[in-house]
Amino acid sequence: MANFQKLTPRSEDYSKWYNELVVKADLAEQSAVRGCMVIKPYGYAIWETIQSELDRRFKEQGVKNAYFPLLIPKSFLSREAEHVEGFAKECAVVTHHRLMNDPNGKGVVVDPNARLEEELIIRPTSETIIWSTYKNWISSYRDLPILCNQWCNVMRWEMRTRLFLRTAEFLWQEGHTAHATKEEAEEYARKMLDVYADFAEKVMAIPVIKGVKSPNERFAGALNTYCIEAMMQDGKALQAGTSHFLGQNFAKSFEVQFLSKENKYEYVWATSWGVSTRLMGALIMTHSDDNGLVLPPALAPIQVVIVPIFKKEDDLALLLDKLNPIADNLKRMGIRVQIDASDKSTPGFKFADYEMKGVPVRLAMGGRDLQNGTIEIARRDTMTKETIAIDGIEATIKNLLDEIQVNCYNKAMTYRTANIRECDSYEEFKQEIQKGGFLLCHWDGTPETEEKIKEETKATIRCIPLEALPGYKEEPGKCMVTGKPSPRRVVFAIAY
Amino acid sequence: MANFQKLTPRSEDYSKWYNELVVKADLAEQSAVRGCMVIKPYGYAIWETIQSELDRRFKEQGVKNAYFPLLIPKSFLSREAEHVEGFAKECAVVTHHRLMNDPNGKGVVVDPNARLEEELIIRPTSETIIWSTYKNWISSYRDLPILCNQWCNVMRWEMRTRLFLRTAEFLWQEGHTAHATKEEAEEYARKMLDVYADFAEKVMAIPVIKGVKSPNERFAGALNTYCIEAMMQDGKALQAGTSHFLGQNFAKSFEVQFLSKENKYEYVWATSWGVSTRLMGALIMTHSDDNGLVLPPALAPIQVVIVPIFKKEDDLALLLDKLNPIADNLKRMGIRVQIDASDKSTPGFKFADYEMKGVPVRLAMGGRDLQNGTIEIARRDTMTKETIAIDGIEATIKNLLDEIQVNCYNKAMTYRTANIRECDSYEEFKQEIQKGGFLLCHWDGTPETEEKIKEETKATIRCIPLEALPGYKEEPGKCMVTGKPSPRRVVFAIAY
Repeated sequence: MANFQKLTPRSEDYSKWYNELVVKADLAEQSAVRGCMVIKPYGYAIWETIQSELDRRFKEQGVKNAYFPLLIPKSFLSREAEHVEGFAKECAVVTHHRLMNDPNGKGVVVDPNARLEEELIIRPTSETIIWSTYKNWISSYRDLPILCNQWCNVMRWEMRTRLFLRTAEFLWQEGHTAHATKEEAEEYARKMLDVYADFAEKVMAIPVIKGVKSPNERFAGALNTYCIEAMMQDGKALQAGTSHFLGQNFAKSFEVQFLSKENKYEYVWATSWGVSTRLMGALIMTHSDDNGLVLPPALAPIQVVIVPIFKKEDDLALLLDKLNPIADNLKRMGIRVQIDASDKSTPGFKFADYEMKGVPVRLAMGGRDLQNGTIEIARRDTMTKETIAIDGIEATIKNLLDEIQVNCYNKAMTYRTANIRECDSYEEFKQEIQKGGFLLCHWDGTPETEEKIKEETKATIRCIPLEALPGYKEEPGKCMVTGKPSPRRVVFAIAY
Repeated sequence: MANFQKLTPRSEDYSKWYNELVVKADLAEQSAVRGCMVIKPYGYAIWETIQSELDRRFKEQGVKNAYFPLLIPKSFLSREAEHVEGFAKECAVVTHHRLMNDPNGKGVVVDPNARLEEELIIRPTSETIIWSTYKNWISSYRDLPILCNQWCNVMRWEMRTRLFLRTAEFLWQEGHTAHATKEEAEEYARKMLDVYADFAEKVMAIPVIKGVKSPNERFAGALNTYCIEAMMQDGKALQAGTSHFLGQNFAKSFEVQFLSKENKYEYVWATSWGVSTRLMGALIMTHSDDNGLVLPPALAPIQVVIVPIFKKEDDLALLLDKLNPIADNLKRMGIRVQIDASDKSTPGFKFADYEMKGVPVRLAMGGRDLQNGTIEIARRDTMTKETIAIDGIEATIKNLLDEIQVNCYNKAMTYRTANIRECDSYEEFKQEIQKGGFLLCHWDGTPETEEKIKEETKATIRCIPLEALPGYKEEPGKCMVTGKPSPRRVVFAIAY
């Protein structure tokens, strides 16, 4: 049941607001297992739409889905030096394959005789197991490219977890491609970044900056990590998706060679790219307000809810005579609509609940509307409502949903634009970065300078943008810390 | 690349035929992790269609998808006595959450300081973690029913594994429902069995017997296990899906009570139901032949393949002028069609490969066809082909796909009918059961008799049919072993 208590306002405690919203909007909750979440049906319905929208886009790029094992032999991790550094410190280790009755009491204990010869790791990501498989699939240039993706769960033993944003187990997709040339692989990694950016902006209504990570922030084992970065309503950055150019690192670690057209053995070139249930966190923190979730219609499990307002069963029947045909028409138009005629709760309760859940459009009809041939239409994004004629309501709703989708994006873009600024003095930077937002600064390109800034301010380089941001020019300058030359400004922010 | 070697014929070695087919049809392969498989893109595409067909049917029954944690605290298993008996002996146990560099050499070892306080089990099934969650979701009859499903991976540490049929990790869906009354829960378990049976027959073209398990074969923790049983081409039985009435067992173990309409606290009633990637094994063993996979069109990733036969590029262009519009028309009709105009392999190679992969309809067109306005059309199920006029080919193909779907089912049904027989003498039974097939026998209803039969013949009671099989009457009789009274015949078989 929905909880009627108001959310803590964002201005009071943004973090608390987020945690409360996730639970009260019925999206997810903590489970009995530390750091692992339960994704509730309403939250999962949003994730299913994210999945199907992305899956269609992947398939348009020639990608095919497959499935690789959950468990990875411990020794596989060590094959790629940086990879093991990046993942060994936070992984769930399977050491035994049997329990037995506790000889000293009730319950069960690990059977000491069922120890595995080699420990197995629950996948934190699947490069190693997949490249050990690709070795068998690839012998000639004719076998390339391979473009596989899997939708699955992964596990990274995070110490501090938050629903959707950072959980020990999360759901994601990971694409893994194999190519004959460096150029083709690098181009594919870039192409998938475009797919992510297009999805984020069109479907999630989240403006993103496309960029490349500095070496410090690269994926463990990658030569280049491309990313899309979004700005949350508290001015912090959230990395919403990454696409890695892996070079020949994994092909070399797992000895994957192919016979080229020129009849020479060469190592295969690789990419990998992924987005996760973290996107749910980005969605929430980009659009929602103090009344609860705000959903862009493209991702709303219920796009339109219709609430008849009645006292007697007879009144309800009359209202439904009018409302059922509207719902049927909307369904035929491909709109996800639901009539809530239950008498379990009051209209006021229902309104608050659908607001909390971010249903984009709400229709309400009572006795007076019935007489007048009118209906009340309310939009969630602006919290405005008006009473309009019932005739032609379907077209009005269709247009309104499109409008809300655009408005969600524009609102987020306006916020982002207002919170990006250039900064050329490190002293100023230290002050400014605490106010939130993205700062565009010159940087000398060294890890040392990056480290120093991170230590002193907690800000990191979110990305080196692939193109100048709207309203800004790409120009060389001098590093704000060392004064050394810098080819272009990079994006600094404090990040989730 | 496809492997051109022929399959071992079924008559020679059925088991070998199966193992070869799974690999050569590019469905799945063994991974580097013992007992865990890689599901290859072609196999996974079939699984995706199975998923989407089932998912739609579930949602029509009011089911919503959700996601629960992969890991289960060890102590949860012990809460339900039978459940722990059933699953503790074959589970992957996570004991640590970190690796560290090996102080004595290369590679990584388990960090002894990162031992978990309580071990975690990779879910073999999720009743325990889900009922520990439902406790927080349920307080009143108003919260019921809860109808959740999850699509996920599970793990059971099987000692002897076979691709799809028995693997340590497999993919499945598990539905878990909570109800206010016993009647409603039992009815729901039955309803989901009907959903499975309908899906198996209509989509997979596999005839199934709906029945209930004997107590020996029940799911660990269930009061009743309903099942659908299919007959493979070697006469063995394969359990294709189960739906459990769990009574109040899990509600009691996890203290899940609700306040009824009558204002009394009562324990909640439960069901669970699942099908897995094992269905892929059933699909293969029901329809396929010595030339490879045979797919009912409803599940075929490619329903129609079109192969132009050409020597020069110019010839190909002329052929494609004719073939592209056909492919476009078929796509518009919702048919999954693919033109294979690559010059990487010969038509003969392509034909054999698409036969191995079970593509239901193959069209081939060469120079002479072009002159004559004809095309060769071949169907995979009967391995017949003919040359027909190209005009109106789309309607012909549509009808042919429907016909193949029906023929797959009918062929399987004919085989099953020919291999079911009644048997009233235990001496005869011992001989007959070795020939394969299902034997309909009277049984006195005791676990002792069932055990004795299993030990002496390896046959088990597959199910007590819910209704008499076609052509048979439900009549009482005497147990073939003990002579004690029996209300009806049950189905015996040797099972996968």
